[in-house]
Amino acid sequence: MRINENAESTLNKLLDDIRKNSDKMLGYPLNKKFDYSALYPFLSYTINNAGDPYELSSLGTNTMAIERSVLNFFADLFNAPEGNWWGYVNHGGSEGNLYGLYLARECYPKGIVYYCESAHYSAQKNIRLLNLPSVVIKAQANGEIDYDDLNEAVRVNRHLPVIIFATAGTTMTEARDDVDTIQAILKELRITNKYIHVDAALSGMIYPFLESRPRFAFETGIDSISVSGHKFLGSPLPCGVVISKKSNRDRIAEKIPYIDSVDATIAGSRNGITPLILWYAIQSLKEEGAHEYVQKCIEVAKYAEQKLKEIGIPAWRNPNAITVVLPTPPRKICKTWQLAVQNDIAHLITMPDVNKEKIDAFVIDLEKELIPVEC
Amino acid sequence: MRINENAESTLNKLLDDIRKNSDKMLGYPLNKKFDYSALYPFLSYTINNAGDPYELSSLGTNTMAIERSVLNFFADLFNAPEGNWWGYVNHGGSEGNLYGLYLARECYPKGIVYYCESAHYSAQKNIRLLNLPSVVIKAQANGEIDYDDLNEAVRVNRHLPVIIFATAGTTMTEARDDVDTIQAILKELRITNKYIHVDAALSGMIYPFLESRPRFAFETGIDSISVSGHKFLGSPLPCGVVISKKSNRDRIAEKIPYIDSVDATIAGSRNGITPLILWYAIQSLKEEGAHEYVQKCIEVAKYAEQKLKEIGIPAWRNPNAITVVLPTPPRKICKTWQLAVQNDIAHLITMPDVNKEKIDAFVIDLEKELIPVEC
Repeated sequence: MRINENAESTLNKLLDDIRKNSDKMLGYPLNKKFDYSALYPFLSYTINNAGDPYELSSLGTNTMAIERSVLNFFADLFNAPEGNWWGYVNHGGSEGNLYGLYLARECYPKGIVYYCESAHYSAQKNIRLLNLPSVVIKAQANGEIDYDDLNEAVRVNRHLPVIIFATAGTTMTEARDDVDTIQAILKELRITNKYIHVDAALSGMIYPFLESRPRFAFETGIDSISVSGHKFLGSPLPCGVVISKKSNRDRIAEKIPYIDSVDATIAGSRNGITPLILWYAIQSLKEEGAHEYVQKCIEVAKYAEQKLKEIGIPAWRNPNAITVVLPTPPRKICKTWQLAVQNDIAHLITMPDVNKEKIDAFVIDLEKELIPVEC
Repeated sequence: MRINENAESTLNKLLDDIRKNSDKMLGYPLNKKFDYSALYPFLSYTINNAGDPYELSSLGTNTMAIERSVLNFFADLFNAPEGNWWGYVNHGGSEGNLYGLYLARECYPKGIVYYCESAHYSAQKNIRLLNLPSVVIKAQANGEIDYDDLNEAVRVNRHLPVIIFATAGTTMTEARDDVDTIQAILKELRITNKYIHVDAALSGMIYPFLESRPRFAFETGIDSISVSGHKFLGSPLPCGVVISKKSNRDRIAEKIPYIDSVDATIAGSRNGITPLILWYAIQSLKEEGAHEYVQKCIEVAKYAEQKLKEIGIPAWRNPNAITVVLPTPPRKICKTWQLAVQNDIAHLITMPDVNKEKIDAFVIDLEKELIPVEC
């Protein structure tokens, strides 16, 4: 394969731009500390994990054995019920959320979805795609769902099944909807037809490694959970994992007898490189010590919060969060440091590649913009 | 990042298996002739094309400019209406088909989907996901839709909008549903509320380069078209492109004001490496000469058909197809050469990496299994 000189120069310029932009990225939950060069030899082949990772594939260039190993890791991490779980590696957290809501709809075609206004926007996108009725619930100041509002919303619809879209680590403030409290509300209202999906895009890889693990996964009686692969673990390709109760998944799988192999996934052809990337990152994390890895991120977040307060910025964090929330800085700062902004708040996230030196550089930059220059 | 010796050995064994399986793959429409090593430096960064490729992204590590260039190429190839088209690079043909049907449903919420029994199984999967009513239409012997059956099915539902899921190159026999004939049927029945999506997963990259290009894309008045990127162009990662009329896409985009940037795609985070791969393949194809490239594949297909006939196998092809259909060979042959099998027929596909020597090796292997060994 050969390309001409113009095309080559386009490529080089783009790589240069990406390198520069990558260096000053603080607002996106993307871990930039990785090196998957050991996997590059696989990129010479048309690898494809089409179909169900637990079915035999007639396509010999797949990495489904590695995929199953990745799924075992996450099922274990999320306390999935032994012998009654299923999952697959997908293209990102949004697809995992789509899958969870799809299962929910197949279980309860007349169900209503309840989700918090601070949930990721894929909730609303997927609800529309699946043609589901839904109710948006208010958020508390820290981004967590307002339980009283949820109680009230469900109360007036007690005759219909309840589908909860809960979040473990919201996009803007890394807040956690407490599933135990939600379950108590549903119990009080005697709701038995219920499905709970948890969007754990970011925190699904953090909570299990905290000194005191919060209850957020299958131990709270949820039905499915989605996590991003490219966020905390880091990857050049977006990817994610969804784990559900096997009994839920079977509802979808058993109804498609017209394909030779059972296929309960959303996509047809599926990426076989991303399971390799996740597997490699997990193996490497085991060597480094996941608890220490997470602890370091939290320390940097504490440091950032402290440093911002020192220059008079009312920064804050949710408990154990690596997301530091601050009033939206001047536009120039947001652009340079690629901060995520929503209305009057912005955030920076101390992913594993962010160290104290980078925080210092950011704080100096920010301070310059805040203090009027004396003439 | 470091992994232990056991993990390293697992990786090496898998690579070895994949190498062997890749070498003898004849049944899947996956072009194995590629070398994207020039793009590997991009894999050091968290590249992400989240959102609409035509909106400004606050994430600096994106390849959306390259993505737009890829979309221009395909819009041109498919004769998209000037100034009224939109598209994005997605994770494969199935997502493109989901997108087309999603647009169709948003245009005609009361529509019925008509698709041929030989359509790709993603049609049925997506129809279920989108909760759409549908009618399966009979196929002719060559795999093409049965127009009389379509006429009859639409006739009894003339009061409802018509959503056609047509195929340009069916999975098993590479047959083409003729959109002009379909349009004539709809016209005869005075159907004005209609949406036509074309699944051109494989043939979308072949038809435009034939000596006599068949009418299959926007020139026939269709609304959207989906093509796979990893099939004819070849890629280690599944990918695809969907192009739709912009006016259709705006129906989805305008209805989601709750996100800062307009996002009319299905996924949230989107792969930024696959646009680079497609772009690189297109640039390289321009240098090699796309017409010659396609012509070579057809010649090898003719050769394979002839060689199979010579040993008494009633092989056949649709006009200009690179898919050679044959009665299902013994199981051993199907497994070794990874042939796609459906009921009593199987096929091999002469993708750009398949040469006459490989066909000879296959025919020799097959002949051995057919002729009883004399003792």
